[in-house]
Amino acid sequence: MAIITLTTDFGYKDHFVGAIKGTILNNLPGISVVDISHAISPFNIQECAYILKNAYRSFPSGTVHIVGVDSELSPENQHIVVQVDGHYFVSANNGVISLITSEIKPEKVVELNIPNINSGSFPVLNVFVQAACHIARGGKLEVIGKPFDALKELRQFEPRILNNGKTITGNVIYVDNYGNVITNIQKSLFEAYRNGRDFEVIARTNKLKTIQESYNDIINFDLDKAQRKGPGDALALFNSVGYIELAIYKSDLNTVGGASTLLGLNYRDIVTINFL
Amino acid sequence: MAIITLTTDFGYKDHFVGAIKGTILNNLPGISVVDISHAISPFNIQECAYILKNAYRSFPSGTVHIVGVDSELSPENQHIVVQVDGHYFVSANNGVISLITSEIKPEKVVELNIPNINSGSFPVLNVFVQAACHIARGGKLEVIGKPFDALKELRQFEPRILNNGKTITGNVIYVDNYGNVITNIQKSLFEAYRNGRDFEVIARTNKLKTIQESYNDIINFDLDKAQRKGPGDALALFNSVGYIELAIYKSDLNTVGGASTLLGLNYRDIVTINFL
Amino acid sequence: MAIITLTTDFGYKDHFVGAIKGTILNNLPGISVVDISHAISPFNIQECAYILKNAYRSFPSGTVHIVGVDSELSPENQHIVVQVDGHYFVSANNGVISLITSEIKPEKVVELNIPNINSGSFPVLNVFVQAACHIARGGKLEVIGKPFDALKELRQFEPRILNNGKTITGNVIYVDNYGNVITNIQKSLFEAYRNGRDFEVIARTNKLKTIQESYNDIINFDLDKAQRKGPGDALALFNSVGYIELAIYKSDLNTVGGASTLLGLNYRDIVTINFL
Repeated sequence: MAIITLTTDFGYKDHFVGAIKGTILNNLPGISVVDISHAISPFNIQECAYILKNAYRSFPSGTVHIVGVDSELSPENQHIVVQVDGHYFVSANNGVISLITSEIKPEKVVELNIPNINSGSFPVLNVFVQAACHIARGGKLEVIGKPFDALKELRQFEPRILNNGKTITGNVIYVDNYGNVITNIQKSLFEAYRNGRDFEVIARTNKLKTIQESYNDIINFDLDKAQRKGPGDALALFNSVGYIELAIYKSDLNTVGGASTLLGLNYRDIVTINFL
Repeated sequence: MAIITLTTDFGYKDHFVGAIKGTILNNLPGISVVDISHAISPFNIQECAYILKNAYRSFPSGTVHIVGVDSELSPENQHIVVQVDGHYFVSANNGVISLITSEIKPEKVVELNIPNINSGSFPVLNVFVQAACHIARGGKLEVIGKPFDALKELRQFEPRILNNGKTITGNVIYVDNYGNVITNIQKSLFEAYRNGRDFEVIARTNKLKTIQESYNDIINFDLDKAQRKGPGDALALFNSVGYIELAIYKSDLNTVGGASTLLGLNYRDIVTINFL
Repeated sequence: MAIITLTTDFGYKDHFVGAIKGTILNNLPGISVVDISHAISPFNIQECAYILKNAYRSFPSGTVHIVGVDSELSPENQHIVVQVDGHYFVSANNGVISLITSEIKPEKVVELNIPNINSGSFPVLNVFVQAACHIARGGKLEVIGKPFDALKELRQFEPRILNNGKTITGNVIYVDNYGNVITNIQKSLFEAYRNGRDFEVIARTNKLKTIQESYNDIINFDLDKAQRKGPGDALALFNSVGYIELAIYKSDLNTVGGASTLLGLNYRDIVTINFL
């Protein structure tokens, strides 16, 4: 039996997630239901996409991912299932799928069409769970939906190439648990334009001339501890999912602060790379 | 084997929940243990009841629900198991059960009486887990408890009917993850007194003349986006579990605010309905 | 098949935990993966040790515990597996193991040595998960590591015996979900030096002359409610895991405050016991 994952903005306190899990287990005893995140900022599609894009691939092929962000049905926000990259996403047509699968073409997209269901104000429970259980059970998409070809595109915040390829400007798309800020500039894009040149990463008043592969790369372990860089020092990183990230070494948002607070970088702020 | 759910005020950081899950899995390898919530405000029985009441019914009949809020044993706070509506609740006799099952008569209530157990300062681990595993294994209540007929009633915050049925006053009983405020006025009560009349829902200085079935109902999708209502507009809703809720469309407590902050409504505050 | 637990400072929002669980389930379908905590303060080894020490013993013998705090590989922070007390800990050599197992000698310690793996900036996913799955599957430690004898000791914050055994000074090592503060003074140490004497527990300007076994022990249930102690009153407790804790009865950090805020006690602050 397939796994079902949950990615929502429901938080961890309310009854929503419990009701969803109870219903799934009532339908499919023994199934694995895995929380990816319930802490998406309310209605934040960009955040949802960043998290889900970087988690879903770890799951086995055939996994069903319920996306519970901005999911209320409207004439402009249809309920859909997208089969892509061997996985199934049950979601509203709010653009999140285009951000997750920007580099991959969906294999199949259907608009949900389950009879005798009132979507109401809790469509994840009333509609998405039914669809997900159907798919996890091995059911066909054609039984619960009809072909759909109006997948909403959300292409804001693409990095831009300026100045004859000498400059890339990107935006902060995510701030993580450590306050590290992740940009939408991927390593592959950076390398495609670099051509072996030196560069500087500019974020507000800060300038970095190296991009590391791990946080520890800024530490010279041959030096005495007192002479080394360490907690509080800024760095740029190709992070573990291939994006350029600005970080503070061993940061803690609740005490010393992180890159978001110390470098003054928030969601949507601009980060620039100049090739020299 | 039955499912065991957990609803507590232990939070997500401390070792409490891990120790409970480890002990359950040690007793019953392979059992499903599902978190309903660990973010109940400490010792808040009303919040606990709202969340558990709206989650438990989704689980299969026979599920065992551990209620870990205000659970320390005292002469006035016995440890009990209540069998009601096909489910089992392992709890202290602090009134939470009366709020959860206000409309249903319990089938059986026992006071726990497990030999050789020191309840101490962590009764959920020391007592409730043992009881829950016994029940999940198919054991009889009589083996772990004795009949109990002093179930504590907690009937505060009932809505009141005033002015010859022309007015209902209720209270805020819950604020959800979006800052939406839920009152204790149920749709069924509202409809029983409405008699086809117009009405106004009054919360502080705000007045609403319609109660929606979904958040999107306030949007007229035939209008241009610039002319529509949208994020930031207030609405009243019969929410997905049948209570009247005051909401802000697409609110986010961390940025623009929600109904609790924008309408100035907190736990226990009064909401009034006048039939015209 | 063994259980795998997770204790990290990744928080509940980011994709990290989802990616880890997906990878584990991809390797070992149907395995139980249990969250102990993902809310460790970033890089806080002491907090991590307190939580994991008090949770791991509840799990069955043979359980594999992934410790995802300060885990990046460096010449001074090797990746290791420690077999101790019948459990397996997959961790970096940052001292957390010495705090968890201070009273028990490890049965086996290996330094991880898995070929063709790039540890990078997400070693928990890239290395620890592979090691944990190998062990959960029943694989031998020798296959993934080589003997290691340089387990880092972290012995700060040990309580001190002063004044010819008339005084014990300890430190706050943890603040829990209720704001209760836990010291590093264990009941066993206290009893070893007490010799039947009276005592006072001193924390800043507060003095307590009794240490309770449960929170309710400060309440005299024979008195009328108005005359009893109750919410807001301070107490000292031998907590459920054997440490001396300073607590406020029925505290809530979000409303009335807890011991940390009301008594002004934070991580590392001193608590003194004087035998009289």
